[in-house]
Amino acid sequence: MRFKLPLLAIGLEVAMIVLFALFVHYETDHNVHQQINTTTPGAVDKFLVSYALFQDVHVMIFVGFGFLMTFLKKYGFSSVGINLFIAALGLQWGTLIRGILHHHNQEIHVEIENMINADFSTATVLISFGAVLGKISPIQMLIMTIIEITVFIGNEYLVGEIFKASDIGASMTIHAFGAYFGLAAAGILYRPGLRKEHDNEESVYHSDLFAMIGTLFLWIFWPSFNSAIADAGEKQYRAIINTYFSLAACVVTAYAFSSLVEHRGKLDMVHIQNATLAGGVAVGTCADMEIYPYISMIIGSIAAMVSVLGFKFLTPFFATKLRIHDTCGVHNLHGLPGVVGGLAGIGAVALGASNKSTPAMQAAALGSSIGTAVGGGLITGPQ
Amino acid sequence: MRFKLPLLAIGLEVAMIVLFALFVHYETDHNVHQQINTTTPGAVDKFLVSYALFQDVHVMIFVGFGFLMTFLKKYGFSSVGINLFIAALGLQWGTLIRGILHHHNQEIHVEIENMINADFSTATVLISFGAVLGKISPIQMLIMTIIEITVFIGNEYLVGEIFKASDIGASMTIHAFGAYFGLAAAGILYRPGLRKEHDNEESVYHSDLFAMIGTLFLWIFWPSFNSAIADAGEKQYRAIINTYFSLAACVVTAYAFSSLVEHRGKLDMVHIQNATLAGGVAVGTCADMEIYPYISMIIGSIAAMVSVLGFKFLTPFFATKLRIHDTCGVHNLHGLPGVVGGLAGIGAVALGASNKSTPAMQAAALGSSIGTAVGGGLITGPQ
Amino acid sequence: MRFKLPLLAIGLEVAMIVLFALFVHYETDHNVHQQINTTTPGAVDKFLVSYALFQDVHVMIFVGFGFLMTFLKKYGFSSVGINLFIAALGLQWGTLIRGILHHHNQEIHVEIENMINADFSTATVLISFGAVLGKISPIQMLIMTIIEITVFIGNEYLVGEIFKASDIGASMTIHAFGAYFGLAAAGILYRPGLRKEHDNEESVYHSDLFAMIGTLFLWIFWPSFNSAIADAGEKQYRAIINTYFSLAACVVTAYAFSSLVEHRGKLDMVHIQNATLAGGVAVGTCADMEIYPYISMIIGSIAAMVSVLGFKFLTPFFATKLRIHDTCGVHNLHGLPGVVGGLAGIGAVALGASNKSTPAMQAAALGSSIGTAVGGGLITGPQ
Repeated sequence: MRFKLPLLAIGLEVAMIVLFALFVHYETDHNVHQQINTTTPGAVDKFLVSYALFQDVHVMIFVGFGFLMTFLKKYGFSSVGINLFIAALGLQWGTLIRGILHHHNQEIHVEIENMINADFSTATVLISFGAVLGKISPIQMLIMTIIEITVFIGNEYLVGEIFKASDIGASMTIHAFGAYFGLAAAGILYRPGLRKEHDNEESVYHSDLFAMIGTLFLWIFWPSFNSAIADAGEKQYRAIINTYFSLAACVVTAYAFSSLVEHRGKLDMVHIQNATLAGGVAVGTCADMEIYPYISMIIGSIAAMVSVLGFKFLTPFFATKLRIHDTCGVHNLHGLPGVVGGLAGIGAVALGASNKSTPAMQAAALGSSIGTAVGGGLITGPQ
Repeated sequence: MRFKLPLLAIGLEVAMIVLFALFVHYETDHNVHQQINTTTPGAVDKFLVSYALFQDVHVMIFVGFGFLMTFLKKYGFSSVGINLFIAALGLQWGTLIRGILHHHNQEIHVEIENMINADFSTATVLISFGAVLGKISPIQMLIMTIIEITVFIGNEYLVGEIFKASDIGASMTIHAFGAYFGLAAAGILYRPGLRKEHDNEESVYHSDLFAMIGTLFLWIFWPSFNSAIADAGEKQYRAIINTYFSLAACVVTAYAFSSLVEHRGKLDMVHIQNATLAGGVAVGTCADMEIYPYISMIIGSIAAMVSVLGFKFLTPFFATKLRIHDTCGVHNLHGLPGVVGGLAGIGAVALGASNKSTPAMQAAALGSSIGTAVGGGLITGPQ
Repeated sequence: MRFKLPLLAIGLEVAMIVLFALFVHYETDHNVHQQINTTTPGAVDKFLVSYALFQDVHVMIFVGFGFLMTFLKKYGFSSVGINLFIAALGLQWGTLIRGILHHHNQEIHVEIENMINADFSTATVLISFGAVLGKISPIQMLIMTIIEITVFIGNEYLVGEIFKASDIGASMTIHAFGAYFGLAAAGILYRPGLRKEHDNEESVYHSDLFAMIGTLFLWIFWPSFNSAIADAGEKQYRAIINTYFSLAACVVTAYAFSSLVEHRGKLDMVHIQNATLAGGVAVGTCADMEIYPYISMIIGSIAAMVSVLGFKFLTPFFATKLRIHDTCGVHNLHGLPGVVGGLAGIGAVALGASNKSTPAMQAAALGSSIGTAVGGGLITGPQ
């Protein structure tokens, strides 16, 4: 058994290298080449500007998600360590699977946008990881990474290419999907003994500060997450502005509701670490639409409210009644706010904030994201 | 009393949303729109380039200021947590107040520069927070946020539009202003018992490492802070170069003076965490002027010296004789170096490094910044 | 003796200021000026795009290297504190020495590329610092900084201008050089008593989490390190893509080998903190060549393997048999992977992946980097 993890990991990496050798090439036709011909003093390399957005997302995936889960005193190192492991594997697999669906003459041409999408596909697994942390082994995480990213890219294709729905910040395809996939797997993995192990789930003072490193870098760079693959120009600019204001309103509302539901009006650290981010999740679907900043702020405030109430009332209910134990509360940070985002998207499209989609197609996208996630999680759980 | 904080926060957020609905729109006329017509392969969206500078400033505000104050073992979580709260509220209020002063036909058009300025306006409150940390409640912080940002934007308008003084990196309008506002409030809030509570002000080994996260991100991105709203081209480039070298010289001098004034030549962690940043503060006013790198280095070295000596001799004097207790020593990091920056600006303008202002107007800007800050702080303290 | 450090530091800073006053000017001729004339709506300031890459490198130098060494429970503060000190001094000295070698009419014109190269030159000293941490005083570190940067820039000139070898990500000139310089100095500084002090070299749970801050920021921004001074366009784009995939493969392989060599298949934190970065070091020399992503992944995997095996078997051998005590294991993170990078460069040039160099010149560059490093370290050690 001792050699199972190294052999599986080496086998997967060798497979990746062979598949990359067969399929993956540099992007050479237009994006990069044409710039060479136009190196006038004022012109710059366009890919370098996208690269700055990619780096913001990259920080969110590896520092943000990695440190967000360090609040558990016993799982600090394994959360940040395993986060790096599965993200590094997942980005290679995501590049391949996504590339095969969008190939050019049997070749995958890698440019900055592929790297952003590869990072995005790992985000789903990292969200699910928050629900099953402490329940599964590194080997099971590797298997889950391969299965979940495949299902995710399938659903993403369905949402974007078949339904032609809008989901620029991926409230539905990444956040709701990742949360419900993880919750379904956590439901399968439930053992009565788990509740006795809750001692491992306490935080200590310094572990809470480490988690704030994750929270803050996620919060700061979320406008980049929601705008990274938006159409250049007006839409990308709107995705930045809307996310910025949604997050600001979300923080104020999250603190208010945390103080409201806690004993003696104290602030709860778990709410500060998580619910402050719900506005970034929920504004995702309609971030690039013409919804005006104040609507973004309303979406952010609703998400904060839903998230704090979820932590306070739903998570204990899930653990005791539904036998679904959600280690890091991903349902409250990604699941519910993702659904809020999907519903906001249906409303925004119905009110004409975007003419690229219809309310029915947006609803189909939301249903498909939750459905494939639950299905995928139930299948993956027993592995 | 229990519902005071949630009700105040919800009330403020609802007010923000209403005001945003009435006044705040996307920027649509020139900055974003025109780019759509010029999407040649080499051209990029200009706002994305400013957005990278904005993100550097954003990291400074939320990670930099947030973690810098975690060195106090008992206030670690509240400093990073309240920092996020007041900055999220403050950026919304700053967007409104600043927008109303610079509006177009009753509308505030938000672009990246508004976001940079909104983040800047929160910086003043975060600096003042360092002086009153441990003395006031979250509710008092909310009230101070609203008042201080209003006064700050009034003074900034006076300095920039009436005096037409130069202060690109805001040595006077943000740093000196924030410090003296906080010190005036701290003076009002002084209670003899405070000195007995000094036990809470000790640091422990790990809390000092957390504070270094704040120090380093502030130090690294300071050239972006001083150049973010500079005129594109030569001036912006000079603001980057001057700040880079000022900070480098500041570090070497701060270590030298720390070792000089401490027993047995040991380095003091408080100096390393704070005085190393004084060069960024002090070079702010003349960062975009043609002062040459070596003058920046002299300014950085003088700021380091003043800052270390301030921590060693002035802070104890303030606490015992003037009854002003400066929790994080903001006078030494922002107050004195801000004044050094204001004086350097007067000198640089007198010597012809900029023809946009006069020494008298620079002096008026420095006086106005300190005067309105002290006045505002004295009024806010008793709230 | 008490005044030795402050006087040396002040003396060095005064010398820097005088030399900057004599030689260092702003870049004014082409890079910045011409942009002013072309401020069409779509055009942006080219230097701001390079500035974003510079900032990524800047984070690596000050946060990455600084926190990577905090894993030692007793040296946490001194590693991050001394890191800042020597990097701030080193970047000034590096600007001068490099500028004198590449001057224009006796003047050094500073632009963003000088700042990137100044940061690069400090990296060599920070790498060597990892080998001698705990063995030398701050004063000795200052002297080593001045000597090592001078020797580094001499060797860099030899490699780039005389041999005309390719080493865009500096596997040889920074990583191998820094490691072997530090190891040579550590060999000279060996005292039998050192081994008894190994107690200081243990890590504790939280110090390991602090070190992961360093690891992750280095890992995330390494594509910027390897591409920052690459030729704009295709080469720069390839340096980014190759480094991204090399690092991803490196992580998976490092975890696999860590589990393989440890008792009961556990993962070793030292491997996770260090060997995961070896792929960034090793792909450096041929990062901008047309080697295809899968070759980058092979290089990354080999580097991970070599690095884990080095930590497990070579470091104890060096300490006991060769009397070279490598505090942070820089030989395994920078030395061996740097040599792998140099060899990969020879192979890639031989196979025609670049026509700018020959295999013989690449080999000369590798030999010269190691040779000057060992020579320089042996001379510096006894100071």
